[in-house]
Amino acid sequence: MHVMEKLRGFRDIYPEEAEPRKRIFKVAEDISERFGFSKVEFPSLELLELYKIKSGDELVNQIFSFTDRGNRSVALIPEATPSLVRMISSRKDLRMPAKWYSFQRFWRYEEPQAGRQREFYQFNADIFGVDSYQADAEIVGLAASILDDLGLRGKYIIYLNSREFMESFLSSYGISDPERAYLSIDRMKKKGEDATVDELTELGLNGNAAESLVDSIGTAYSPDDFPVSNYSIDSGGRRSLDRLLKTARLIRGYTDSDIRIDLSIVRGLSYYTGIVFEAFYKFSEFRSILGGGRYDSLSQLISGTNIPSVGFGMGDVVLEAVLKNEGIFDRDLKGPDVFVCYSSAEIFEYALKVANRLRKGGLKVSVSLSVRSISSQLKAASKGNYRYAAIIGERELNSQEVSFKELSSGTQKAIPFERIDNFQKFFDQ
Amino acid sequence: MHVMEKLRGFRDIYPEEAEPRKRIFKVAEDISERFGFSKVEFPSLELLELYKIKSGDELVNQIFSFTDRGNRSVALIPEATPSLVRMISSRKDLRMPAKWYSFQRFWRYEEPQAGRQREFYQFNADIFGVDSYQADAEIVGLAASILDDLGLRGKYIIYLNSREFMESFLSSYGISDPERAYLSIDRMKKKGEDATVDELTELGLNGNAAESLVDSIGTAYSPDDFPVSNYSIDSGGRRSLDRLLKTARLIRGYTDSDIRIDLSIVRGLSYYTGIVFEAFYKFSEFRSILGGGRYDSLSQLISGTNIPSVGFGMGDVVLEAVLKNEGIFDRDLKGPDVFVCYSSAEIFEYALKVANRLRKGGLKVSVSLSVRSISSQLKAASKGNYRYAAIIGERELNSQEVSFKELSSGTQKAIPFERIDNFQKFFDQ
Repeated sequence: MHVMEKLRGFRDIYPEEAEPRKRIFKVAEDISERFGFSKVEFPSLELLELYKIKSGDELVNQIFSFTDRGNRSVALIPEATPSLVRMISSRKDLRMPAKWYSFQRFWRYEEPQAGRQREFYQFNADIFGVDSYQADAEIVGLAASILDDLGLRGKYIIYLNSREFMESFLSSYGISDPERAYLSIDRMKKKGEDATVDELTELGLNGNAAESLVDSIGTAYSPDDFPVSNYSIDSGGRRSLDRLLKTARLIRGYTDSDIRIDLSIVRGLSYYTGIVFEAFYKFSEFRSILGGGRYDSLSQLISGTNIPSVGFGMGDVVLEAVLKNEGIFDRDLKGPDVFVCYSSAEIFEYALKVANRLRKGGLKVSVSLSVRSISSQLKAASKGNYRYAAIIGERELNSQEVSFKELSSGTQKAIPFERIDNFQKFFDQ
Repeated sequence: MHVMEKLRGFRDIYPEEAEPRKRIFKVAEDISERFGFSKVEFPSLELLELYKIKSGDELVNQIFSFTDRGNRSVALIPEATPSLVRMISSRKDLRMPAKWYSFQRFWRYEEPQAGRQREFYQFNADIFGVDSYQADAEIVGLAASILDDLGLRGKYIIYLNSREFMESFLSSYGISDPERAYLSIDRMKKKGEDATVDELTELGLNGNAAESLVDSIGTAYSPDDFPVSNYSIDSGGRRSLDRLLKTARLIRGYTDSDIRIDLSIVRGLSYYTGIVFEAFYKFSEFRSILGGGRYDSLSQLISGTNIPSVGFGMGDVVLEAVLKNEGIFDRDLKGPDVFVCYSSAEIFEYALKVANRLRKGGLKVSVSLSVRSISSQLKAASKGNYRYAAIIGERELNSQEVSFKELSSGTQKAIPFERIDNFQKFFDQ
């Protein structure tokens, strides 16, 4: 294999993509901070065992794992939750509830395709130490607020369900171990209702029951229209459904985007215990933009301590595709400000003084790093989309001035060095 | 091994550390942007072969490598340069010079110790496509500007040397293959001058020559005081030295921190061809904060294309230790603003409306996610270092007001809901 090859499913991200991606990271960070969430970081390598506890076979089979020099089976992290639970359980001095966010790379050995890479970023936000519908709403509300602030207000739907409710509901069909049913239901949107009926029949339901089950989870409802009385469930199931509907109503305090109750949303990971949710873009067949839920029992399994937890993860691959589809991926990009041109090597020190003075003022400033003709430097300034060129020849050096040229209009003004901090004002007049 | 164990040399970073680290990332990004550098991202896994070309045995032996499911020998990236060269060589449409920065995780299987982890972040900045002393100065100037802006102005020394000069200089001692001499010289500061004399003798120098060589590289000089005439070198060496001294003088246009010419700074990596440099903290025995140099021939070896290149890398581990030693690691940290307290579940929707309104104004706002007494919520607000509590009871709900309490002074003011965007003004009066 030639060294110039990049591994499949891994990305080289050049400036034209990396610059707009920074806005995504920044919006997710800023909104999380406003919600009182704090950043954490965790390792990219963990013991493989950490994922065997409760992440489910599908995920474990996709892990990049290897034996390290200390003969440990280690995994390139495929998801955030087990690491976060390990962290929250490792310290007894943390104030609860703890609200954490993180933004890291993850790896899964899957077939690369639209919306899926082997290496991807995921933004995660989690609330630990409180089991309440207010916390459930806050996590979904944070997710929605990030999407809204990215420019997707009204462009997505958040589908909600409750694993707790589903357990009651499935047990009313005689399904006592819902894990395998969840796997079938999770694939329903992809494989179709008929395939799900078949799979549920294989799990032991009779054909009529399987069809009735699939029928009653096939429709998504606005929270206000959910036909509660259609579902004959026990009182525990009723309480779970009440909590879900209360949560849905609270979420309206965060966003005016669409919220739906959808019993076919159960999520692929096996550690969820309460609310589960996914957000989908309305206008095209992308995978879910984000997903999450409550996983109250995972900490018990990992650390022996009980810490109620709810959170979500949002990958960069689908989100970026959605933003591109909307034409807002490179929204608010601020181009470079000033390209400093100079006429000879002797003048470079003055040119550099000008450049560094402007940089201290916060402007994005380049200076030619090789001695070229002024005209070829001006060409570079235009091609690089600089707003201004600062032109410095012997005349400017001698008079301690700088000639600024606005590249869009061609207007040029000579400005004394000591006033260049405010040179843009000369063009506003 | 128990799943609660974290791998040695890997870090869990909790909010009290993660929050101040964000400033480090942000300063490095902001200053780079002002210098006209653009962000890039590259994969965390590369073909192992990429590092066998020219990174040197020491680094290759520290790589976390494994065979993936496609039977490829892959490496968790131990450094940025080969990936960057692969990227810059892969596209023919890039405008040169290209100025790139990146901030990623890297992995090396070394013994964890002070200033060294097996997983670390490194900030990298590189200029491709121009071989000039102006470009050399710009890269060192960027490095210095980042350190200055982090609060380290005057606290560090940048040591400069030139591999091109050293080649002439060492050949004047009859050393024709300087690679092994570089390895000895690179360890001189750690092992002492005597050990270096011994090692150079083993490379074939006679004892007197080895002592003379070590003598003449043992002192660091201010660029103005460098005793040029002490070095009997060929005209190529003279030109390299001139370039280095010109570069050093230009760097003064970027920073007033100390610059030294130090011929014992040669860097451990084997791909450097021109300027090499390292920055050290003045006041304690830390490893280098950052280091870099010119590596003009690496692109030829990797891609067959010649792209002159200069850059540097700065790890997070030493930098963070230095900032902590200076007491400025958590400088400029902005605490949370408002904790919204409410008296009963019925009032939560109004409390949430208040919280989300304040959040939209950019404030960091938390709201209690479980129904507790107002006094226990106020206690949580104090412990969490919130500046204000917003207290909402039935009275406030009925009058559509919010009672804000400044926690440092205890001052409390009732403010109508429609004026809460500017509630802080009521306390400034």
